[in-house]
Amino acid sequence: MKYTYNLTISYDGTEYSGWQIQPNSKTIQELIQNALEIILKEKVSLIGSSRTDSGVHALDQKAHFRSDLELDLKKTIYSLNGILPKDIRIIKLEKKEPSFHARYSAKSKTYHYFVNIGHFQSPFDNKYSFHFNEKFDLPLILQAAKYFVGTHDFTSFSNDHLKGSAAVNPIKTIYELNITKIDENKVLFEFKGDGFLYKMVRNIVGTLLDISSSKLSIDDLPKIFEAKDRTKAGRAAPAKGLFLVEVKYSPGCEEDLSKVF
Amino acid sequence: MKYTYNLTISYDGTEYSGWQIQPNSKTIQELIQNALEIILKEKVSLIGSSRTDSGVHALDQKAHFRSDLELDLKKTIYSLNGILPKDIRIIKLEKKEPSFHARYSAKSKTYHYFVNIGHFQSPFDNKYSFHFNEKFDLPLILQAAKYFVGTHDFTSFSNDHLKGSAAVNPIKTIYELNITKIDENKVLFEFKGDGFLYKMVRNIVGTLLDISSSKLSIDDLPKIFEAKDRTKAGRAAPAKGLFLVEVKYSPGCEEDLSKVF
Repeated sequence: MKYTYNLTISYDGTEYSGWQIQPNSKTIQELIQNALEIILKEKVSLIGSSRTDSGVHALDQKAHFRSDLELDLKKTIYSLNGILPKDIRIIKLEKKEPSFHARYSAKSKTYHYFVNIGHFQSPFDNKYSFHFNEKFDLPLILQAAKYFVGTHDFTSFSNDHLKGSAAVNPIKTIYELNITKIDENKVLFEFKGDGFLYKMVRNIVGTLLDISSSKLSIDDLPKIFEAKDRTKAGRAAPAKGLFLVEVKYSPGCEEDLSKVF
Repeated sequence: MKYTYNLTISYDGTEYSGWQIQPNSKTIQELIQNALEIILKEKVSLIGSSRTDSGVHALDQKAHFRSDLELDLKKTIYSLNGILPKDIRIIKLEKKEPSFHARYSAKSKTYHYFVNIGHFQSPFDNKYSFHFNEKFDLPLILQAAKYFVGTHDFTSFSNDHLKGSAAVNPIKTIYELNITKIDENKVLFEFKGDGFLYKMVRNIVGTLLDISSSKLSIDDLPKIFEAKDRTKAGRAAPAKGLFLVEVKYSPGCEEDLSKVF
């Protein structure tokens, strides 16, 4: 097809069964793909950069589609947002080179995970952070976090086996893992990496919190990595605290960036 | 009864038919009153400081109840929050003097109303602000806002007649009405007054926005006040942008403040 387009999408994942189309579920991919098909009056195949899970949010999801139609970028955004529910917003639409692929061309992704450690959680924060009532030991968590930075086999922190996606390469690189108290009660876990396995961020956050509350020991970590067994690591932190906040492409792919807003 | 207690409550009003108990509706008053009755094992009458409407939020709603039981304040908060849904949180429980009344003892109330004037509204802001797509003329709005400050008959900006509450005194004093751009796309309307009629804040915001978009003229305002007729003023801004953020009592009533958190 003649043209490749890339969407930038922001969504509140609370009401959705995640990004990826599934039968009998309300998914973000399906709603946007349907909206595109209404506007373009043709079949569209929309490919997301990340298959965010049920309840996970995004500030900067990317998704590409191809078409022979030359679209008015600005008008198409307005039309899409007119059709889509208000908890899904298209914030950018760009033309890309033909080889561009929202997932395979991605060079890095950033996820934020929010943990609330206060006595109570604000009603406005409840859908966007995990209320963690157990012992929160930031120095210990920071020490444990070092084990995850760099290139590792993350099989023990992936639920890919549960999806039957055994062919996934479990070797990933985490460039940065920063953990910061952003206010009295709220802690941000910031992950930047070349890619993430299914539930990997949530499993790492859960494991770090299990170390904090002494359910696991920091000394267990090398063994957990070596085991390549999901059951050896800690809990999965709940989806609602997770945000996909940035997907970056190589500079070549950004040449024709045309931010509409 | 021996003891008077005052609750401080924060809630996301999205899912509720407002504060006040109504048949066949999910209301905040009913949920908290039921939770208190479970804990106290007696009938409780809970009186709120403000009857916030369906979809209106609160950071600092107050509500009192009386009982012969001497409560462990901290334990009671934990028990209440254990029973209540997560979009309603009790953040304080205080003992008060016997004459205290959450509504009648209130000396001032502060409401915030958020308007989003961007090209698109973030999915995370959709339930907490009004997306206003028309002409936003801040200098004109600021000029018009001056008409509302001070002591006036606000009948034209009240929907009390629709509730059959004709006996309400329509003379209210707005101490402050500040309108501020808090970021590129978001505007805060801050109202501080001795009390507010039913839908008064939303009707004033709607009227100011109608003046901004030239649906009404600033010169109409004196006539609108004089008419004492709700139909002469502008639209009601939607409930979702409105937050009750502070209820203040006279210093005498604050002597026994005991913030638990």
